[in-house]
Amino acid sequence: MRILVIHGPNLNLLGDREPEVYGTVSLAQINASLKKLAKEHKADITIMQSNHEGDIVDMIGNAKRSADAIIINPAAYTHTSVAIRDAIAASRVPAIEVHLSNIYGREDFRSKSLIAPVAAGQIAGFGAESYALAFRAALSLKGKKLEK
Amino acid sequence: MRILVIHGPNLNLLGDREPEVYGTVSLAQINASLKKLAKEHKADITIMQSNHEGDIVDMIGNAKRSADAIIINPAAYTHTSVAIRDAIAASRVPAIEVHLSNIYGREDFRSKSLIAPVAAGQIAGFGAESYALAFRAALSLKGKKLEK
Amino acid sequence: MRILVIHGPNLNLLGDREPEVYGTVSLAQINASLKKLAKEHKADITIMQSNHEGDIVDMIGNAKRSADAIIINPAAYTHTSVAIRDAIAASRVPAIEVHLSNIYGREDFRSKSLIAPVAAGQIAGFGAESYALAFRAALSLKGKKLEK
Amino acid sequence: MRILVIHGPNLNLLGDREPEVYGTVSLAQINASLKKLAKEHKADITIMQSNHEGDIVDMIGNAKRSADAIIINPAAYTHTSVAIRDAIAASRVPAIEVHLSNIYGREDFRSKSLIAPVAAGQIAGFGAESYALAFRAALSLKGKKLEK
Amino acid sequence: MRILVIHGPNLNLLGDREPEVYGTVSLAQINASLKKLAKEHKADITIMQSNHEGDIVDMIGNAKRSADAIIINPAAYTHTSVAIRDAIAASRVPAIEVHLSNIYGREDFRSKSLIAPVAAGQIAGFGAESYALAFRAALSLKGKKLEK
Amino acid sequence: MRILVIHGPNLNLLGDREPEVYGTVSLAQINASLKKLAKEHKADITIMQSNHEGDIVDMIGNAKRSADAIIINPAAYTHTSVAIRDAIAASRVPAIEVHLSNIYGREDFRSKSLIAPVAAGQIAGFGAESYALAFRAALSLKGKKLEK
Amino acid sequence: MRILVIHGPNLNLLGDREPEVYGTVSLAQINASLKKLAKEHKADITIMQSNHEGDIVDMIGNAKRSADAIIINPAAYTHTSVAIRDAIAASRVPAIEVHLSNIYGREDFRSKSLIAPVAAGQIAGFGAESYALAFRAALSLKGKKLEK
Amino acid sequence: MRILVIHGPNLNLLGDREPEVYGTVSLAQINASLKKLAKEHKADITIMQSNHEGDIVDMIGNAKRSADAIIINPAAYTHTSVAIRDAIAASRVPAIEVHLSNIYGREDFRSKSLIAPVAAGQIAGFGAESYALAFRAALSLKGKKLEK
Amino acid sequence: MRILVIHGPNLNLLGDREPEVYGTVSLAQINASLKKLAKEHKADITIMQSNHEGDIVDMIGNAKRSADAIIINPAAYTHTSVAIRDAIAASRVPAIEVHLSNIYGREDFRSKSLIAPVAAGQIAGFGAESYALAFRAALSLKGKKLEK
Amino acid sequence: MRILVIHGPNLNLLGDREPEVYGTVSLAQINASLKKLAKEHKADITIMQSNHEGDIVDMIGNAKRSADAIIINPAAYTHTSVAIRDAIAASRVPAIEVHLSNIYGREDFRSKSLIAPVAAGQIAGFGAESYALAFRAALSLKGKKLEK
Amino acid sequence: MRILVIHGPNLNLLGDREPEVYGTVSLAQINASLKKLAKEHKADITIMQSNHEGDIVDMIGNAKRSADAIIINPAAYTHTSVAIRDAIAASRVPAIEVHLSNIYGREDFRSKSLIAPVAAGQIAGFGAESYALAFRAALSLKGKKLEK
Amino acid sequence: MRILVIHGPNLNLLGDREPEVYGTVSLAQINASLKKLAKEHKADITIMQSNHEGDIVDMIGNAKRSADAIIINPAAYTHTSVAIRDAIAASRVPAIEVHLSNIYGREDFRSKSLIAPVAAGQIAGFGAESYALAFRAALSLKGKKLEK
Repeated sequence: MRILVIHGPNLNLLGDREPEVYGTVSLAQINASLKKLAKEHKADITIMQSNHEGDIVDMIGNAKRSADAIIINPAAYTHTSVAIRDAIAASRVPAIEVHLSNIYGREDFRSKSLIAPVAAGQIAGFGAESYALAFRAALSLKGKKLEK
Repeated sequence: MRILVIHGPNLNLLGDREPEVYGTVSLAQINASLKKLAKEHKADITIMQSNHEGDIVDMIGNAKRSADAIIINPAAYTHTSVAIRDAIAASRVPAIEVHLSNIYGREDFRSKSLIAPVAAGQIAGFGAESYALAFRAALSLKGKKLEK
Repeated sequence: MRILVIHGPNLNLLGDREPEVYGTVSLAQINASLKKLAKEHKADITIMQSNHEGDIVDMIGNAKRSADAIIINPAAYTHTSVAIRDAIAASRVPAIEVHLSNIYGREDFRSKSLIAPVAAGQIAGFGAESYALAFRAALSLKGKKLEK
Repeated sequence: MRILVIHGPNLNLLGDREPEVYGTVSLAQINASLKKLAKEHKADITIMQSNHEGDIVDMIGNAKRSADAIIINPAAYTHTSVAIRDAIAASRVPAIEVHLSNIYGREDFRSKSLIAPVAAGQIAGFGAESYALAFRAALSLKGKKLEK
Repeated sequence: MRILVIHGPNLNLLGDREPEVYGTVSLAQINASLKKLAKEHKADITIMQSNHEGDIVDMIGNAKRSADAIIINPAAYTHTSVAIRDAIAASRVPAIEVHLSNIYGREDFRSKSLIAPVAAGQIAGFGAESYALAFRAALSLKGKKLEK
Repeated sequence: MRILVIHGPNLNLLGDREPEVYGTVSLAQINASLKKLAKEHKADITIMQSNHEGDIVDMIGNAKRSADAIIINPAAYTHTSVAIRDAIAASRVPAIEVHLSNIYGREDFRSKSLIAPVAAGQIAGFGAESYALAFRAALSLKGKKLEK
Repeated sequence: MRILVIHGPNLNLLGDREPEVYGTVSLAQINASLKKLAKEHKADITIMQSNHEGDIVDMIGNAKRSADAIIINPAAYTHTSVAIRDAIAASRVPAIEVHLSNIYGREDFRSKSLIAPVAAGQIAGFGAESYALAFRAALSLKGKKLEK
Repeated sequence: MRILVIHGPNLNLLGDREPEVYGTVSLAQINASLKKLAKEHKADITIMQSNHEGDIVDMIGNAKRSADAIIINPAAYTHTSVAIRDAIAASRVPAIEVHLSNIYGREDFRSKSLIAPVAAGQIAGFGAESYALAFRAALSLKGKKLEK
Repeated sequence: MRILVIHGPNLNLLGDREPEVYGTVSLAQINASLKKLAKEHKADITIMQSNHEGDIVDMIGNAKRSADAIIINPAAYTHTSVAIRDAIAASRVPAIEVHLSNIYGREDFRSKSLIAPVAAGQIAGFGAESYALAFRAALSLKGKKLEK
Repeated sequence: MRILVIHGPNLNLLGDREPEVYGTVSLAQINASLKKLAKEHKADITIMQSNHEGDIVDMIGNAKRSADAIIINPAAYTHTSVAIRDAIAASRVPAIEVHLSNIYGREDFRSKSLIAPVAAGQIAGFGAESYALAFRAALSLKGKKLEK
Repeated sequence: MRILVIHGPNLNLLGDREPEVYGTVSLAQINASLKKLAKEHKADITIMQSNHEGDIVDMIGNAKRSADAIIINPAAYTHTSVAIRDAIAASRVPAIEVHLSNIYGREDFRSKSLIAPVAAGQIAGFGAESYALAFRAALSLKGKKLEK
Repeated sequence: MRILVIHGPNLNLLGDREPEVYGTVSLAQINASLKKLAKEHKADITIMQSNHEGDIVDMIGNAKRSADAIIINPAAYTHTSVAIRDAIAASRVPAIEVHLSNIYGREDFRSKSLIAPVAAGQIAGFGAESYALAFRAALSLKGKKLEK
């Protein structure tokens, strides 16, 4: 199984950025955990981070041929990017939306996700553990055909 | 670890009810899987289902002393029950909100959860697998103090 | 033909309750008329009243196997219950929504029915006669397959 | 009893028009059924159809002296015509609003009726049968004084 | 000075229609008063009534060449007709919007006039006297060029 | 007949203030015209201007005993003062709302009047002539009992 | 005088539940105070608590014959229950709405009460003292006929 | 190919009407250009104009049998007519919505088209050229089956 | 204990003003009752009334040093005055908001209080008795530190 | 250059009032700094504070002849006063809106300024320094003609 | 004539992407058609595609000197990009907004274009043909001065 | 003191772009002025411009270690970028939001800033002078700890 992990804007600052909201684990640590999990489950994993909406659209556009599932934390673009939404819908690769924090317990505008309606599912609020759960969710989607 | 699982209204009909939305797995099957998982992880598990908002409020009110984590699929009450929200906030037991379907890809009113702001986190869209993921999320919360 | 009639909250007070809005006919009188109609048309009729949302959800959940049509006056739950809406959608038994008063000529919040989108049809504003009309509507649905 | 039946815009196309929404019964067939019902109940019946809002306002303005009840399917004008609403209120003849389809299960704008607040009652969702039910509802209003 | 008076839908019923809202003066009486006023002030007056939006649009389209001011009571079309609004804007003849009742003290939807933004001014709430005031207002506009 | 004329905030600047919106006639000129009209019609007239909401509330509170009609241009307070609205409702003296400009053809917030629902009627858009029309409207209210 | 006191959902947890919002006084202590007050004023008092909306509707339905005033803290149902609102309106027993906390200084959805429009009055924000004030308010209503 | 061209309200005034918005070309000139285009492409063309919503509904109702494509400039009815929308949907003839001006750069209410959701496509903002483009668009639809 | 009582706009007219809404008790009578209550409880009481928002802001600004509690009926300013709200928040003296009528059972705009979020609590709907209840509430706040 | 500085409601309490929001500098200190700055730049400065909306309207009305620029902190009136907005627009003296706190990071209603659309510019969030910046901004406007 | 064609995000996937919505024609095919059209009409054509909002802003910023018209399909950025809107307004080069699908017949958020108000015109719903129509529209704009 | 200046999208076109809105000063001139000011005040200054949201997020992410204050004119991204907002909040470097034009006097959507709630303060409407004022504001923040 080939899994593409996409970290959205400002996630490069993780660990350092508002730790009371996002926790103290760094992005490198999360990536290391994901790679270890992939190894255990004999899955191929590719991990990318970008602050650029266009880069993320590019990545997903390419995923159609190179990935069986996408794990994406769209961060700020969750609430503003129709382009990423359209890219996911176009790719037809099942995408799992991940959030470190509980986006429903913060500012009002954060409770509206433009991505969720085209995602396979959503996992939010468990800090770095959210990614591990998403990895398992991705495995469970294996062999499922997406008919959105 | 003691885990309380609460299934909300109409979930007793699972498997039989709109299988194109909710899948063909029955509630009994989900409960059996959860019990198996609990046994594997040496966790105590209590499972309840009710169509009554008041019953669910009662259960959560009692959880304060008898559970370390709550896994709750509030189903229809997700969108209408301030009473369940208040019960969760009052209990201070971390609660994980679970949905079988991707509530963000359905009718507009289903994308608003009254429960999410007081939940520890939310998992939606993975069918019966959503519960297994929630179980793992609950384990990961062990020993964490909730300071909402 | 088997018809289930469900009277929602506060309808037990009928005749006595705000007669200028709801009329002076009591629930017992309405039920007697319905039973007479059923006898005339050789239909089986079951009649229930409850102030509890959960009870109504239970009744509808059971209807799948025991009724060919539901006549329901959801009263106050018309405007607040997603659980009853989901129960009707889950049952796939055609449901006819009935109101004694013209709910569109009263407070603003009463003109929004959560039930109507999943009902087969709606009859409102004819007082006790609304039920008799709903009974005839139920008969006319006989043999129709509901494919919502 | 004198009953005026008004069919609104595009109902002349019935049977032919979007049969999956409106059914395959033609307007002529509905009218024939209504005339038969009228004969059975010794009621006078007048039936009109127009695509013109102004024509419908004219008809209702004349009804004050020539009809005891109005059965009206305002079709598209349900959602846009204050003029028809005002005509009904001005006539003080009790009006029964009829719809073939369940207007609450379609586009959002169709769930708002400008006519309903001044109608005696509303019947929607039973196809051609909606008219027969409205006819019976009209009979039941006989001798009632409208004090809106 | 040439003045065109347009009475909108249902105003033909005046005197008879909801007298507690619109008063007991008939349209014929209002027209007689306006003709008398016109005679006193040596003004040409043309008076029309129609329940048809299209007729009113036609009349205003013709007014460009035949009238120096329009007095219009758009009645129900006040709240729904962009066509009449566009006709007034297109004609460039100054139009005075008149209402018998105080439209701001009634249902919410009546407090929004689509006509007012393109009218020269508005007079509302004085019953039949509203027309006499509008006549005087029209005279006062004499010789004014409209540069909306 | 005793008439109280109240000019609201910034009207002291008239003639000088945004003449393209409010015209070049000064408040003194308007007042002189009104006094002349009053003399012609043997009416008592009292004229006041204030930039203070509280002063205007005071004036209206006193009007109950000293005036038969109020002509008020609430200017900016039209859109923000519940206190003036309540004062008019409390006084039970019929009040005529006047505006120099067409408030419906300007910024959105100016098309909402808090005063209009409790006024007898409204005249807007005729410049200084609006006051003369209001004076005549006030005369026409003579002897009418206000039963709001 | 017979007074019925109804405590809504989660109030059984009082003292223990979010004491920074609801205070440290338990429900038992509040009930004891109310009973003492009742004794001092020779009033009959009945006190109930339920987490079930339907139970509360039942209680109020019965109050018509057994109580002269209702003191109700609808808690979470304040914001979601049309059924309780209808029950109060149906009972015609004057009801006093009580809140421990200042519901207007909390989340937005808590500032909208569905109950308030049919209550006699509302007391909020004084902690346990709110009930004592409500008791005195109830006494002051004695002998008053409710004509809502 | 048979093409029906429908010009909506006030378009009879074209050339003369607010030329700074709608241009100086008259409707006769536009029609002449369309006829010339039709001749060049050997298409049958029928052109109608009406200020009456009902007339336009009539025309479209007849189009089902007599036209392969409709070019419609609904003008003011773009924003208010559900009846024309329903007529287009009922006819199943592909309809091209045309506007002379850029309706998105004008008043807010003009940016909402009730027609667009059932049209095949929309062309707006190119003045008289909009019609020529619509004609070409109509040709390109030839032989396409509409499956809305 | 020093208590400052502030009566807002139009309350000087009490008894005389819309008695069906506000009752027949005059402000002088309410003040006399409050003074008697103060005497009984050995409290200092200062009572003021003003129709001027600025005066009320001044009073509250001075209260910081001269009062232990404020009882304020902001009347119309309840719904429009951020200045009074800010004054209360600035003073840090606990303020009790009082209303004679049930503001939640009247016009929509009256159900929104700008003052309530910064008040200690709110009492509404008990007529003149509302003030007596507020007085007792003020006493109960004695010695409490306000930590808004 | 003549500069008029206007401090709005509750600013007399500065230093003392919610220092965590507004800082500990008093109004006297701010005024002293402004006078010193004026002296340095040889500008005439006039400083006023009022809690009365009407007073502020009066001041601005007089500014037309006595000031070249206005520095105004409308405080609470920022969000509620159309009268001050109209006064600024009428005066045509360029006005600089100043706020001590960042009004966009507080309650929702504070992020809407009625004054900003007619101000030359806005400076917010720098505490007492906001005034010094506004002073420099005022100097930079010198000789500029305002053509709003 | 120099024409710049800009394809927005995800259009690189055309033909492959949701063909039931966007058709099976690839972007290369569309570009080839446009180049052929340009050759026929002796126009210079430059074609670009980017998933990056910033790239599109760059392109348009450069267009001021290198293009006489812009044909832009902003795709997802239609609904979210003020930057592209501002770039178009800044360039003063007439821009034609193109959409393959009928954006008004899809999700609600797609019916709001941030670009349309600053475009010369809009063409939507004709699949690949939309571009050919836009090309002709561009030619028709030749020599027109844009005075937005 | 180290100051980072960020110019958002389309500001590279300054001087040339809609000079009636943004003035005739070029970005190079503004930058020269800022460098001169920095030299005078012995501050380090770094200036960047980008049309790419992602670039701006990158810059701010790096600022945490290299700048003591940020002066940012987010231009179009003011209204659409949660990513820039999150970057500023993550950096904890105080940011001053600058606008050349008065964004509150333009289109409605420009009066909503997503950046303002996390900025230290905002300066808008003074043209190129806005930047000089922001520079002084930045100096005044020196040594202040940001505790958002």
